[in-house]
Amino acid sequence: MESQVQQLIPHVVIVGAGFGGLRAARELANARVRVTMVDKNNYHLFQPLLYQVATAGLSPEDIAHPVRDILRHQDNFDFRMAEVHSVDLAGKRLLTSDGEIDYDYLILAVGGETHYFGMESIAQSAFGMKDIQDATSIRNHLLKMFELANEEHDPEKRKAMLTFVIAGGGPTGVELSGAISELTHLVLSRDYPQLKQAEVRIVLAEMFDRLLPVFPNELSENTVKVLRKKGVEVRFHAQVTGYDGAQLTFKDDASIATDTVIWSAGVKASAVMSTLGVAQGSLGRVPVELTLQLKEAPNVFLIGDCALLFDSTGRPLPMVSPVAIQQGVVAAENIKALINDRSPVQFRYKDPGILATIGRNQAVARLWGMNFRGFLAWLLWLFVHLIRLIGFRDRLLVLIKWTWDYIFYDRSVRLIGPCL
Amino acid sequence: MESQVQQLIPHVVIVGAGFGGLRAARELANARVRVTMVDKNNYHLFQPLLYQVATAGLSPEDIAHPVRDILRHQDNFDFRMAEVHSVDLAGKRLLTSDGEIDYDYLILAVGGETHYFGMESIAQSAFGMKDIQDATSIRNHLLKMFELANEEHDPEKRKAMLTFVIAGGGPTGVELSGAISELTHLVLSRDYPQLKQAEVRIVLAEMFDRLLPVFPNELSENTVKVLRKKGVEVRFHAQVTGYDGAQLTFKDDASIATDTVIWSAGVKASAVMSTLGVAQGSLGRVPVELTLQLKEAPNVFLIGDCALLFDSTGRPLPMVSPVAIQQGVVAAENIKALINDRSPVQFRYKDPGILATIGRNQAVARLWGMNFRGFLAWLLWLFVHLIRLIGFRDRLLVLIKWTWDYIFYDRSVRLIGPCL
Repeated sequence: MESQVQQLIPHVVIVGAGFGGLRAARELANARVRVTMVDKNNYHLFQPLLYQVATAGLSPEDIAHPVRDILRHQDNFDFRMAEVHSVDLAGKRLLTSDGEIDYDYLILAVGGETHYFGMESIAQSAFGMKDIQDATSIRNHLLKMFELANEEHDPEKRKAMLTFVIAGGGPTGVELSGAISELTHLVLSRDYPQLKQAEVRIVLAEMFDRLLPVFPNELSENTVKVLRKKGVEVRFHAQVTGYDGAQLTFKDDASIATDTVIWSAGVKASAVMSTLGVAQGSLGRVPVELTLQLKEAPNVFLIGDCALLFDSTGRPLPMVSPVAIQQGVVAAENIKALINDRSPVQFRYKDPGILATIGRNQAVARLWGMNFRGFLAWLLWLFVHLIRLIGFRDRLLVLIKWTWDYIFYDRSVRLIGPCL
Repeated sequence: MESQVQQLIPHVVIVGAGFGGLRAARELANARVRVTMVDKNNYHLFQPLLYQVATAGLSPEDIAHPVRDILRHQDNFDFRMAEVHSVDLAGKRLLTSDGEIDYDYLILAVGGETHYFGMESIAQSAFGMKDIQDATSIRNHLLKMFELANEEHDPEKRKAMLTFVIAGGGPTGVELSGAISELTHLVLSRDYPQLKQAEVRIVLAEMFDRLLPVFPNELSENTVKVLRKKGVEVRFHAQVTGYDGAQLTFKDDASIATDTVIWSAGVKASAVMSTLGVAQGSLGRVPVELTLQLKEAPNVFLIGDCALLFDSTGRPLPMVSPVAIQQGVVAAENIKALINDRSPVQFRYKDPGILATIGRNQAVARLWGMNFRGFLAWLLWLFVHLIRLIGFRDRLLVLIKWTWDYIFYDRSVRLIGPCL
């Protein structure tokens, strides 16, 4: 049904509706191209607040926004809800759950997935923390454990129900363990007055010797102090070796009896990257040119977590949204350049700083060359996350929920159910 | 672990956290009893707005509120999340998914479930409309149909994808068909600009010759007129006989090719009522004394949809929340009476009036002996539903969402996914 004129306009396909993909699509708004975004979900997920869904603070709705709505006013944009099974570089097409999709230019912004480092038992019995399904599963499970423990008379069983282990001391692990501590001590303590709070145990297990390794050491140390004050047991040199659903084992032969392990200790590039048929680097990421082009196919651009590029010190660029967003801009610019026979430009990462929250009034931030912690860092964190949400409506609703929870020590989404 | 004193205090068990059960629990707040509420979900569901979850207007969170939170300040109250399999009247105990629960007094407020009138094919292939799972399944499915239709080139297949049939012309059917019309014509028309709106067909199929039979005839006729203006095809004398997932068939040999049938044509008492071992009346409801006591067991009270009681004209009391709430009060009062050797009082229903909305600016209401329709009825509907929601927070959030959607013709929860 497409007119012949449309067929002559270059077709840019963007895979992934994450931060990078969305930004690239927007940058192509006024270009003489057709843009098709492909994602297995019909929404953009605001991942930085996923841990709040996992801890009953926010609804999935608050951090998931329909892609068609976000780009409603962009005339050259279309969306396909489909899962990409593989990329055929030679044939310039994608094989998807919804048939083939041809492209002239491709932007792969497929992001990452949980990395279990080959430990099957962890993959099977622990919770990942990458998508809405993960987050609502964790929320349902945490709340269910309290319901069960409340009726359990066997102290050993009750102890395992009330022991929550988070593996991985990066921002997600820190934010989760802080939030679980507040959920249990500030909110659930009132829901289950018979349960002894002293029986609740929250363990943050980190393989190396510090939390938040990308932050300055002073802030990492502050984070440990704040978490311990919140009753979180921070364990270093704790390398997980397996979890059978009952016993979590470590390399030093230690073990913890627990019904709950949340794995936030690793992310790797999405599995679809292995279908490109090109060499993959560390964590499955695929090396790209400085122009973000794939060496083997200059009409293919890789951005965000799935792309491997190094900073000036030779370290891989981190898997964070600012990298993806800045790369989205450059990938779009370079596609316009190629179409107009100009030379593509090189990507240079401008680090906007890093932020992580530990909970109520507590966060750490490295911004403008300065370290922030405590209340000021927490205000910065709130502000930055609020303005980055999509649309006035989402911002207003999240602001109201945060304010409510702050004042009343509440977490209103403590609902158990597969569809909540 | 319970003290002996506690064991001597009568134990009142309430099954069901619906309108009636909650009200009964509250009325027992100051009584010298232990109250245990049992429900398979850990939340109270505000069913009157369920159709808005099914049509992407509200989140499950907005209409589901944790029971432990609602009754947090009631010292004699405890909650058990468990499914009741059967009631043992002689043994004064419940058999549940979480073991046995003994009672001295029992209030059964188990509500209703979808009634398919023995049509297996409908039960299997149509959507029910009774709980959160139903509502989010409908929302996911409706949105998925638009995604699929947008890529479908076969006009027959596309037509079936875009044909939505709602069976049953009661309040739920009217509210749903009005809301689906607005979702498609006002919101999805912008998300899918290539789809021709003329291909969308919404059918409301009613077995008898009028909609909203409990309303005055004038209001029923107004409802038909408004729905038809909204593009809803209202069919009377349309008795469904089966649905194989592709063809919906009627008794007069008519049929409709559709991928979507929503069954809102029947409710019956919850299946657990058949385990009492007493005679059941129409729709599986169990007849009770005017004191709401079960004749066979005077320590057992039945309230709401599962109880059968007649009004002064000899018609069964309707399965609506005001009946359940007023009965909750009387059941609680009568338990207190029995404990204190007073005589139980008789229940008399005071009809507070009825309301149903058809959509934007349109509703019908029968209140204070008067008929209301159009904008005024719609304002009444909004007000009544808003104040009946639990807590200031839920009211504020729903008010903001309604205002936003009204001004911007939006429905923000158009997310597809099992956990949204």
